Amino acid sequence: MTDRLAELTKRLLEIDDIERAAAVLGWDQMTYMPQGGNQGRGEQLATLASLAHERLVSPEFGDVLRAFAEEVRGAPEGDVRHALLRTVQRAYDQATKLPQELVARQMRLTTEAYESWVAARAAKDFSVFAPAFAKMVDLSREIAEALGYPEESYDALLDLSEPGMTTKVAADLLGELKASLVPLVEAIAEHKERVDRSILYGHFADETQWRLGLEAITAFGFDFSRGRQDRSIHPFTTSFGVGDVRITTRISEDTFASAFFSTLHEGGHGLYEQGLPAEWARTPLGQAISSGVHESQSRLWENLVGRSRPFWRYFLPKAQAAFPSQFGQVSVEDIYRAVNYVEPSLIRVDADEVTYNLHIAVRFEVERALMRGELAARDVPEAWRAKMQEYLGVVPPDDLVGALQDIHWTGGLGGFIGYSVGNVVSAQVWEAAGRTIGDLPERIAQGDFAPLLGFLRRELHQLGSRETTDGFLRKATGQGLTTRPYLAYIEGKFSELYGL
Amino acid sequence: MTDRLAELTKRLLEIDDIERAAAVLGWDQMTYMPQGGNQGRGEQLATLASLAHERLVSPEFGDVLRAFAEEVRGAPEGDVRHALLRTVQRAYDQATKLPQELVARQMRLTTEAYESWVAARAAKDFSVFAPAFAKMVDLSREIAEALGYPEESYDALLDLSEPGMTTKVAADLLGELKASLVPLVEAIAEHKERVDRSILYGHFADETQWRLGLEAITAFGFDFSRGRQDRSIHPFTTSFGVGDVRITTRISEDTFASAFFSTLHEGGHGLYEQGLPAEWARTPLGQAISSGVHESQSRLWENLVGRSRPFWRYFLPKAQAAFPSQFGQVSVEDIYRAVNYVEPSLIRVDADEVTYNLHIAVRFEVERALMRGELAARDVPEAWRAKMQEYLGVVPPDDLVGALQDIHWTGGLGGFIGYSVGNVVSAQVWEAAGRTIGDLPERIAQGDFAPLLGFLRRELHQLGSRETTDGFLRKATGQGLTTRPYLAYIEGKFSELYGL
Repeated sequence: MTDRLAELTKRLLEIDDIERAAAVLGWDQMTYMPQGGNQGRGEQLATLASLAHERLVSPEFGDVLRAFAEEVRGAPEGDVRHALLRTVQRAYDQATKLPQELVARQMRLTTEAYESWVAARAAKDFSVFAPAFAKMVDLSREIAEALGYPEESYDALLDLSEPGMTTKVAADLLGELKASLVPLVEAIAEHKERVDRSILYGHFADETQWRLGLEAITAFGFDFSRGRQDRSIHPFTTSFGVGDVRITTRISEDTFASAFFSTLHEGGHGLYEQGLPAEWARTPLGQAISSGVHESQSRLWENLVGRSRPFWRYFLPKAQAAFPSQFGQVSVEDIYRAVNYVEPSLIRVDADEVTYNLHIAVRFEVERALMRGELAARDVPEAWRAKMQEYLGVVPPDDLVGALQDIHWTGGLGGFIGYSVGNVVSAQVWEAAGRTIGDLPERIAQGDFAPLLGFLRRELHQLGSRETTDGFLRKATGQGLTTRPYLAYIEGKFSELYGL
Repeated sequence: MTDRLAELTKRLLEIDDIERAAAVLGWDQMTYMPQGGNQGRGEQLATLASLAHERLVSPEFGDVLRAFAEEVRGAPEGDVRHALLRTVQRAYDQATKLPQELVARQMRLTTEAYESWVAARAAKDFSVFAPAFAKMVDLSREIAEALGYPEESYDALLDLSEPGMTTKVAADLLGELKASLVPLVEAIAEHKERVDRSILYGHFADETQWRLGLEAITAFGFDFSRGRQDRSIHPFTTSFGVGDVRITTRISEDTFASAFFSTLHEGGHGLYEQGLPAEWARTPLGQAISSGVHESQSRLWENLVGRSRPFWRYFLPKAQAAFPSQFGQVSVEDIYRAVNYVEPSLIRVDADEVTYNLHIAVRFEVERALMRGELAARDVPEAWRAKMQEYLGVVPPDDLVGALQDIHWTGGLGGFIGYSVGNVVSAQVWEAAGRTIGDLPERIAQGDFAPLLGFLRRELHQLGSRETTDGFLRKATGQGLTTRPYLAYIEGKFSELYGL
């Protein structure tokens, strides 16, 4: 390790320690913290965020980074230091381009927007939220101007969670998805009766559900000596380092699928975090490539594995042993069909594989129009209803199950595209894994997930951010981001399921 | 608020946020963290500790503190700023007197000493630990020299947890306790058969024990909207602010008393933390006076309340409802006697009210001799055995249940005196509470703990560190630290119990 690299690393480790400490506080806030802790926790988190930010934007850090950049300029192509420089430079640029005053304003506005969002939800009326949201749109434009962008201001927001993503690329991607999925949804809606999911409803004891979810992700390879699952209202994954990855779930005893697939989903995120390269731990290079690539891992384990026939050939006997009265007489085919029931619905987080991306398209197009000034905040519900009707054939009866359903907009715009990137990437990676592992379905049917996890570890997890999304996809799958494998997978699977 | 106070407070709040964040990380480490988190957590905690330390010893902090001190010089006596200055000055002096190099050396040596302590425990042989411990004694002397002391170097170590405590005062206190307790222990040992505790052993379901402990401290006034109980190997209390106080316990199904009294004990610590003054939260003035005063609150609820006849008049029906087969036929007198069984034993943490302070006397005298150079580290087991024989009439068969039993020495010397201060103060406060609340026993027998908690809130908790130990005791009880109420309580209670 060179002196300049050592000097840079020392500073990166300290910043990472502060950020991971904040992650622990955030995890506790969502899992165990009593209500009385709210105020103090907010203050502690604000102090930690400002400490980490201060350190990143300090003139000393800038000097160290410039010296390192100079050194790297002479390094051979492929030297890992190029990738480290890229990831650190990106974090540094983002932090330095956004004035502290703007960040503070965003934090205050987020609190204000959250409060008015809660009030609007109580009133089931978007117009209560609209004034604060209008300010948030203005602020999002201001942030975009501060960050800069290639073509239009929305690019800057997309880039925050998906490095390199532009509005044009995202619009094309969603356009391709819409072109195939909208007619598929219509066709399925005409044959709803062909799939029955009633076996998933009844009474499923909490503790048994908990155990069964853990059994599945243990089989996937989630390492419980380096992680754990707890309960929270909204499931999430967070990491305090490669040795300590936390996932959460919530259980409803009325249905089997909700908690089970939530555990598979978060377990997929967790497997990615546990597989990140320990040698670059505590630096940006040791982190996931993007939100979308992260989502590809949760979707892969939840959907491509968890909602497949081979998986249920392996897992049904375990589900039957756990819930004999509910699943005793159920066949693999029964449960495979039940967990793949498709229904155009109003709520994104409950959406199935076919309809999910259409929810993202609604939000993306509304956000883009807002950023371009072509849509006013107060007119969002109308645009929302029109797009829901057009893409999904359903219209929310009120804003609670319409434009007020997601919390995301209380913090700003641009956070949705990763979900669709994740879906698309999951199928690209899955297809490549299938080519590499000739007998992948048989392995899964035998409960042997090691070849699949090995592939993901090798082709993605262990890279950290050494490659970009595009670079990793080209190496692992032979192609950049493309909707083809995803659409082939969805059309094949659901045409067969619904007999189209 | 003056400008100088505002400037000082701003810095104190930031330091407190960092320290509370570290407390959250420490809590998680002891409760939920998977094994794989060890290394990362150590790094995060080290970074937070160094951030807090840096900020406290910075020249800017020194300037702000000096400016504030100047302002306070002119303030009227009794102005709260005097107390704030005293507490902040103390923290600042301690931090600035100890060179970073010395602190870092102590941290490294603690790791080394811990490892050799673990190895020594495996070998049941103190000589394995002695070399590292000898270094720790040397380092403790170095720390004492850096901090300064009035008479002998051990004073400096005692002062760290008990502000103002000196070796002489501690030796006198323990001397008085020994003079009364050693003969009492001997007398009781001759009449062991007069108290039977067999009803406390059997099978007590984990979840029922958990619920019963919570029921007791809920009745005491522990506010679960501002705190919670979790599980850990060793019970402890930690606070992330007055709105979020965490206690822990561990449950063995073989016995009732262990977890129950542990919950009462930690609940007592927790009540103190929840009662600290919110208006001085996040400053040293908003914190507990000392370890010993903290211990007085845990001991008061555990022993003076929890091991009393009135408490069991109130609580026995609840314990009977929870454990009908075990306690159905038990009388108040039966359980009162059982939970007050006295037995000279080898392990401090299992010691009863009568013998506890004698364990402290052993450690205190060994430590003092080490600090004075009158005893070598390798000779500790011999001195230990001699003192155990003299004070308790029992001798450890090996070092595992002798000089290796406590983890404290892996981190340095001086941490034990607070336990005896706590016992003594608990009885002083109890006596004063009884004078103020004429019908205290009746209130307790009715499950009405509000008058007692109100007294503690008013006379101690809400003060924070506005008073010293001595100052608070004089105001609340009319006297400084004195063993008289404690010895009167112990002698009265146990003479009656054992028919002496």
